[in-house]
Amino acid sequence: MTSQQHSALQTQQVDIDLGDRSYGILIGSGVLDAQESYAGLPRAASAMIVTNTTVAPLYRDRLAEVLRPAYASIHTVVLPDGEAYKTWESLNLIFDALLSHGCDRKTVLFALGGGVVGDMTGFAAASYMRGIPFVQVPTTLLAQVDSSVGGKTAINHPLGKNMIGAFYQPQRVLCDLDVLKTLPDRELSAGLAEIIKYGPIADMGFLDWIEASMDALMAREAQALAFAVRRSCEIKALVVGQDERESGMRAILNFGHTFGHAIEAGMGYGAWLHGEAVGCGMVMAARLSAALDLVDAAFVERLTRLVSRAGLPTVAPVLDKQDNVARYLELMRVDKKSEGGLIKFVVIDQPGHATMRSAPDALVAQVIETSCQAA
Amino acid sequence: MTSQQHSALQTQQVDIDLGDRSYGILIGSGVLDAQESYAGLPRAASAMIVTNTTVAPLYRDRLAEVLRPAYASIHTVVLPDGEAYKTWESLNLIFDALLSHGCDRKTVLFALGGGVVGDMTGFAAASYMRGIPFVQVPTTLLAQVDSSVGGKTAINHPLGKNMIGAFYQPQRVLCDLDVLKTLPDRELSAGLAEIIKYGPIADMGFLDWIEASMDALMAREAQALAFAVRRSCEIKALVVGQDERESGMRAILNFGHTFGHAIEAGMGYGAWLHGEAVGCGMVMAARLSAALDLVDAAFVERLTRLVSRAGLPTVAPVLDKQDNVARYLELMRVDKKSEGGLIKFVVIDQPGHATMRSAPDALVAQVIETSCQAA
Repeated sequence: MTSQQHSALQTQQVDIDLGDRSYGILIGSGVLDAQESYAGLPRAASAMIVTNTTVAPLYRDRLAEVLRPAYASIHTVVLPDGEAYKTWESLNLIFDALLSHGCDRKTVLFALGGGVVGDMTGFAAASYMRGIPFVQVPTTLLAQVDSSVGGKTAINHPLGKNMIGAFYQPQRVLCDLDVLKTLPDRELSAGLAEIIKYGPIADMGFLDWIEASMDALMAREAQALAFAVRRSCEIKALVVGQDERESGMRAILNFGHTFGHAIEAGMGYGAWLHGEAVGCGMVMAARLSAALDLVDAAFVERLTRLVSRAGLPTVAPVLDKQDNVARYLELMRVDKKSEGGLIKFVVIDQPGHATMRSAPDALVAQVIETSCQAA
Repeated sequence: MTSQQHSALQTQQVDIDLGDRSYGILIGSGVLDAQESYAGLPRAASAMIVTNTTVAPLYRDRLAEVLRPAYASIHTVVLPDGEAYKTWESLNLIFDALLSHGCDRKTVLFALGGGVVGDMTGFAAASYMRGIPFVQVPTTLLAQVDSSVGGKTAINHPLGKNMIGAFYQPQRVLCDLDVLKTLPDRELSAGLAEIIKYGPIADMGFLDWIEASMDALMAREAQALAFAVRRSCEIKALVVGQDERESGMRAILNFGHTFGHAIEAGMGYGAWLHGEAVGCGMVMAARLSAALDLVDAAFVERLTRLVSRAGLPTVAPVLDKQDNVARYLELMRVDKKSEGGLIKFVVIDQPGHATMRSAPDALVAQVIETSCQAA
């Protein structure tokens, strides 16, 4: 083992630089249980752990144990697990618990779980008493490399994903690589989708590394996962640091998400995992980029093959047997990037660089048709 | 009429200075219908007017008319009227309308109504797609002098008032003094409570003026109302400009509100108007200030007499026949200013100056008992 490889297993820190809203992402083995991971966080009479029915039995007690010295009262809310529960009803369970325990403005929330728990806890923290501090403790690969970082919080609305939320930054993000060992295979693949994403939009060297390391990543080799999480967080930190509220370039992080959100909403939230929809959505967005003459067919093939190797779907689902294209277009028109009914897509304008643009409906229709038929 | 008196009837502007979140408050006759009131607001394909069943028939069409040149589509949501409807269910009516009309991130919301409409529209604007622009068009005196200014937005939770919300600033506040002519007497009095508030906490000269002008204000004399609205907004602008997110001094604007919120929640939202509860709450807070030896009895009497002249209640309601004091204390402990179960009160430490402090339960109990019996 070289010293460089070894260092990948030490706890590393990636900083999100946002002035007085700056914070650190700690990445390493054993981060969850280490007292020093929590040093310097806001002190308060009480803390509340927000988690779900799957994660609670695994990590709730360990988190409560390490928080005990800092908080006199530690409460817990256990939410139902899954994207289908990223709703106002679940969010209200957090508010009910906060108020029934008499939690005040200093109370610190800890989001212990995947992207759904993180997004809902973040929005609860943004809104409870107009804002209380919170900490992300992501337990899925997807949450560690993407959703826990950058302060996007939200719940779904029946008519659109992540339509109600806030930009609200956590105090810290704690990525314990050990928790990835027990992650279901499907969740591992879902996380790999967001890792792959960073290649085509920002760093083709990273894409090369992912291709070379895909077997190691699928085998959950610690060093490979450590580097993938760190590099993903570094790229995200760079983008978010320049455009916190997505007035411009931050939108490139949504590569694959316009098609992906349509798949998630159209199939019913939870039928496809977010990462699965993004994996397939990236293939579709790459096809659209090629149809717009921005990249060549080889690039599309390369990305499709990598998405497939990560155990992710590359064939898009039929959302409506009567008029599939119209259904996709309808769902994509409510995307947050749309303006005046015009859908804005994140496309790759050259390998390693993304931009936002609209496209003729006929071209998009062709991409949808091809993607739903592809073998 | 002197030129100074005359100038009070011209449209005047008070600025809220918050860096890139700065905005102006326009105060005058005919502001609602004047095209120039809307100059320079964000342009978009669509605007949405949020109002209630009482205000819609009076002003909805006039607002839509003046907005027509700037927005191709103008939608309207009409909410049920009253504090009892400041709930998630009403808020969701706004989200449903925004999504079903395909409103995008550029859509501008117009809050046309009193404090409830303003608070809910503001929170909807803060949360829809993580933030869209909004404009306050307050149609009650209370909203014009207090709730529409400063960016506090919220909905109620059954366990506490304004517990779920955001600090989110409007693009502009349009105070048309003409709309006050049709305001019910009870609403006029409710607004006077928040105007009176600014005297003891910040400006005894203004309190002198209010005392001298109370008959004119109750008679809705245009010049008196114009000055009262302007001076109130000036004081609020000064406080909010120094402490937008209420980390310190902004809390003084809650003078009378700790007791007042307990009355509102304890009586059931809507039974007492917010301004009525604040009027009575100020008398109670003044009594507490005297019990703490910060002001003398004459100050309490003076404030009580002024609140009474404004047509507001000065005798507190019994919230629980079994244990009234315990009920008040329980309700006040969930106040947003509480910390670790300790209630923080805004007290007058010298006439024209307020501060935050806790008080022994026994002293608070005495104030509650006296206030519920006072003649």
